[in-house]
Amino acid sequence: MTSNRRAGVAVFAGAFLVALAGDACHVASGTTRYLWDLPEVWDSALWFPFAVAAPVTAVAWLGRRLDLPRSRPRGVGDGLAGLALVLALYALTATLVDQPTTVSVVLCAALAVAVWAWWDPSPASLAFALGAAVAGPAAELGIVAVGAAEYGPRVDGLFGVAPWLPCLYFAAGAVASGLWRAFEDGGR
Amino acid sequence: MTSNRRAGVAVFAGAFLVALAGDACHVASGTTRYLWDLPEVWDSALWFPFAVAAPVTAVAWLGRRLDLPRSRPRGVGDGLAGLALVLALYALTATLVDQPTTVSVVLCAALAVAVWAWWDPSPASLAFALGAAVAGPAAELGIVAVGAAEYGPRVDGLFGVAPWLPCLYFAAGAVASGLWRAFEDGGR
Amino acid sequence: MTSNRRAGVAVFAGAFLVALAGDACHVASGTTRYLWDLPEVWDSALWFPFAVAAPVTAVAWLGRRLDLPRSRPRGVGDGLAGLALVLALYALTATLVDQPTTVSVVLCAALAVAVWAWWDPSPASLAFALGAAVAGPAAELGIVAVGAAEYGPRVDGLFGVAPWLPCLYFAAGAVASGLWRAFEDGGR
Repeated sequence: MTSNRRAGVAVFAGAFLVALAGDACHVASGTTRYLWDLPEVWDSALWFPFAVAAPVTAVAWLGRRLDLPRSRPRGVGDGLAGLALVLALYALTATLVDQPTTVSVVLCAALAVAVWAWWDPSPASLAFALGAAVAGPAAELGIVAVGAAEYGPRVDGLFGVAPWLPCLYFAAGAVASGLWRAFEDGGR
Repeated sequence: MTSNRRAGVAVFAGAFLVALAGDACHVASGTTRYLWDLPEVWDSALWFPFAVAAPVTAVAWLGRRLDLPRSRPRGVGDGLAGLALVLALYALTATLVDQPTTVSVVLCAALAVAVWAWWDPSPASLAFALGAAVAGPAAELGIVAVGAAEYGPRVDGLFGVAPWLPCLYFAAGAVASGLWRAFEDGGR
Repeated sequence: MTSNRRAGVAVFAGAFLVALAGDACHVASGTTRYLWDLPEVWDSALWFPFAVAAPVTAVAWLGRRLDLPRSRPRGVGDGLAGLALVLALYALTATLVDQPTTVSVVLCAALAVAVWAWWDPSPASLAFALGAAVAGPAAELGIVAVGAAEYGPRVDGLFGVAPWLPCLYFAAGAVASGLWRAFEDGGR
């Protein structure tokens, strides 16, 4: 298997695991609830981790394909740290279910900006982060609209999804944009 | 506009936004309460963000003027990460309103030391951090003494202000000491 | 005193302080409770900080002695940041006492992986981290078994100790493995 293909597999597997573990936190905390009776993996509907890992892998592939200028070289260790920090932010949101919206949104926004600024504070990764911050919540709005899942009563203030959701996708989009190359380059 | 002047504007604007967003968290969580009926911006009394941004900018200017030895070069991306981490610590304190004092103080102290050690673990930035940890809470004690604002009943254990307040100022002072140069130098 | 000996003293003192401050958080939050009537230092039984600092120092000495390949040079500032981040994770666990187990474990695991990946994402430090994640909770199981201490009713789900305990030891083991050399090398 080429280094290129191995990187893609690593990105998909990493995003899959982050989605599964993060979603389990959201279900356990009552942040989200699945409404259709479908096969499950851990606490998620079977489709969920694929619906996260596929676009993350596509974004990572695009970030590599475009070969946009990075402000920092990132290696395998950084890639693992990036995935871990996005998962930590994902799990943190599950602890904020009873916090005032102002507090949860400012905390998540500050951490998302910190992740972006640490990972790669370049205009290109900012564009990916902002794109994800719009596209991700829009996709979840669709999921809520068709009735497949819902956010809890205290965390549905953004048209039915969580107000901090754009922050989580912002951090994920920033890291995803450079993840393929981080895993491809091998060690730093 | 010179690079020097642009850096000063960036420091002031950054500190202004961090103060506004962080203070909104403190008001929303009941950590603090304004007692005078004054014009507001977001959830803060109008004077508050200026009372933060002006001394932060002065400290940043002093840090640049003294040109003290740094243990790490810091660029624009680091400066944004530093502001974001200080805001994250600010917002985090708003979630600790029901925690035992020991827990909230140790958590904030550990994170403040981590921010300093990441930003610039030099004796000079330590001196700025310690100075801010004394001067900041002292200024807030004055604000409480004149009756302009108060801390909530569970978070006023340090002579009327929050016991973790020196930790928040410690982190802010460390970052402020090198922020002007971080924004002046351009990229890393 | 040689640089070598000074590093050992610094490791012992750092681990001692982290253990004392972190344990105070666990006692204050009801995460743990001492059951024997023994002399105390802060909120800990007198034996506790020694029982942490001695093995941490031994692990740090072993990491130096083996001189295993590191993926990143680490200096005094990094060592202080590492100690501070482990203490922050320690204090954070004290705030998670009412969280669902899934949430607290995923959050601590993600942060522990991030600490390892930031500190030194090498196979050697991973081996130390995994060893600590097994040996640390095993030792605490012994302490619980002899009746010297206990975990609270909501945080004793791992055979009587906290389910997130392996994550905390994982992060501590990773940092400890390179801490002696970080303090020995002097500044970066």
